[in-house]
Amino acid sequence: MKVSSAGLLVILAHCASTHTSEAFSIITTSKNHATGATALRSTAEPQAKTEFNLNEYIMAMQPDITKALEETCVSLDPPMTDLISESMRYSLMAGGKRIRPVLCLAACEMFGGSKEAAIPTAAALEMIHTMSLIHDDLPSMDNDDLRRGKPTNHVVYGEDIAILAGDAMLSTSFEVVAKQTPRDLVDAERILDVIGRLGKSVGAKGLAGGQVMDLICEGKGNDVTIDDLRWIHTHKTAALLDVAVASGAILGGATPEEVKACEIFALNIGLAFQVADDILDVTQSTEELGKTAAKDLEADKTTYPKLLGLEGARAEAERLVVVAKEAMAPFGDRAVPLLALADYIIDRKN
Amino acid sequence: MKVSSAGLLVILAHCASTHTSEAFSIITTSKNHATGATALRSTAEPQAKTEFNLNEYIMAMQPDITKALEETCVSLDPPMTDLISESMRYSLMAGGKRIRPVLCLAACEMFGGSKEAAIPTAAALEMIHTMSLIHDDLPSMDNDDLRRGKPTNHVVYGEDIAILAGDAMLSTSFEVVAKQTPRDLVDAERILDVIGRLGKSVGAKGLAGGQVMDLICEGKGNDVTIDDLRWIHTHKTAALLDVAVASGAILGGATPEEVKACEIFALNIGLAFQVADDILDVTQSTEELGKTAAKDLEADKTTYPKLLGLEGARAEAERLVVVAKEAMAPFGDRAVPLLALADYIIDRKN
Repeated sequence: MKVSSAGLLVILAHCASTHTSEAFSIITTSKNHATGATALRSTAEPQAKTEFNLNEYIMAMQPDITKALEETCVSLDPPMTDLISESMRYSLMAGGKRIRPVLCLAACEMFGGSKEAAIPTAAALEMIHTMSLIHDDLPSMDNDDLRRGKPTNHVVYGEDIAILAGDAMLSTSFEVVAKQTPRDLVDAERILDVIGRLGKSVGAKGLAGGQVMDLICEGKGNDVTIDDLRWIHTHKTAALLDVAVASGAILGGATPEEVKACEIFALNIGLAFQVADDILDVTQSTEELGKTAAKDLEADKTTYPKLLGLEGARAEAERLVVVAKEAMAPFGDRAVPLLALADYIIDRKN
Repeated sequence: MKVSSAGLLVILAHCASTHTSEAFSIITTSKNHATGATALRSTAEPQAKTEFNLNEYIMAMQPDITKALEETCVSLDPPMTDLISESMRYSLMAGGKRIRPVLCLAACEMFGGSKEAAIPTAAALEMIHTMSLIHDDLPSMDNDDLRRGKPTNHVVYGEDIAILAGDAMLSTSFEVVAKQTPRDLVDAERILDVIGRLGKSVGAKGLAGGQVMDLICEGKGNDVTIDDLRWIHTHKTAALLDVAVASGAILGGATPEEVKACEIFALNIGLAFQVADDILDVTQSTEELGKTAAKDLEADKTTYPKLLGLEGARAEAERLVVVAKEAMAPFGDRAVPLLALADYIIDRKN
């Protein structure tokens, strides 16, 4: 069990592993949770008042998310045409905690919005994320054969079907938000705001742009700066987390200032996740290979530890988590689920 | 010059080629233009009253469409990240008549809507169409090296960048419609209607589904039925023409019944285009190879002439054009641009 402190907000994260059956509980003692990086500290201050069970929280949301996703892969007529739906279903139903949908639902709830208001957007976020995994796994990209312990989509269905299933998933995500978001709960202008943000998060200033920049920087070695690295992670990882939390806030009725605070939170958590990931790569290399960062050097891949040193990278991760949590301070205890999710996202890399 | 008759609507289509400098003029004598397939008849009844110059009409729309498309490929900072925008720009600016945007603008105009209301959707339609071309040209799909006389996107930028540029183009198309459609001209609910239709037109029940079904049917020979063939063309080709015309109508203020009429028109024109294409393949084979349909038989590709015979296919094309034009009858002379575009779409295959 890993116990860590985050200033006056004390979080107990039991077994931050990927197993869904394990428990997470978070205990709050104060509304001041502006500081602390749970992934990076090891002292405990268990002065519990309210216990929040993150695992229960995540699990309780799964049936609605799964149902919404299943509905996007309806069988087609004639049956021969069903192959594309089968391919979409294969990757969408491959498991995972659905972190982006959960972030969206949690943000919506934080502003008093109902689950029904955010479910279509939650499903869309998972579809966009899954599309990006299918396309990133292709032979011309990362050429991965396994994903979540199963053969990747193109291994099972072929590259052509995998590309088309990704395209269908991406376009259907916008259809779902536009058609299914209940108009009695959400104003049409807010739905358009969400769609605009979702669209941007995948484009040249989002996932696709970040992935292209990552491809360009591979092999560039010392020419890659800390700003380049931040650009890649901001677009490749943080942009979709940003829109997940911001969309939930918008659908829940947040003001523009509140949405902005949610964006600062999500962007910094997304970047902290990547720094933690880089630190782990170095640590693992050290333990496993007996020499530091050999794997990264071999791949000529620029990382935070390479640019800032291991201690510098740790300090950067702490700084990002502090900035993220400070942005949530105005929401007090209502932010507990999002703060717990943030710790979970960063901690799961350990 | 090709002169043909369409019942009481007489259409003169000068030089239905792909050269933009050539002239198209359409002469109407009556509001009854319910019958006729210009591509398939050869008698002329030139009782002109009003002359409509299709080429001028198409050309007049190009600057606004091009400007809107250029704005979607803005340069990024840092400059290194600009490769994805460059790749998007390469395919989006490769020329072409922008038929889908023009159909959208024409439909909007038919219902009294302004150009400004439909320009973002017009640009989105071209982006979606271009994305589908980039992905269809990939080595794992049709493996085409040339498109519009230029090397295909993946030949210039690599498969990885081409896939990501397509993804970015698709997602940006929704961003553009959601953010840029002027709210003082179009109600938010109508914009959401357009986005829902655009999303569906690329998904399992649209472009991607049609392409998968086409891939499945290749090599199935005699097992492919006329219904299968119609399904493929409805989804692969007609669905995007459908949403082009329907979206224009919605943005122009059409009633649901009027939008439905536009859909019937566009779907049937889309199917007629495919039948004409199939007929042409057979005719060309006959002229070039001295034997009928040898090319299609070799590829084991099912076509309308194969299933219905050449005369049967011609009759089917005529029937589709009649159905399409009947749907436009209620709009009288206001439908002249759309009817001229329909004839152009079908005739250009000759």
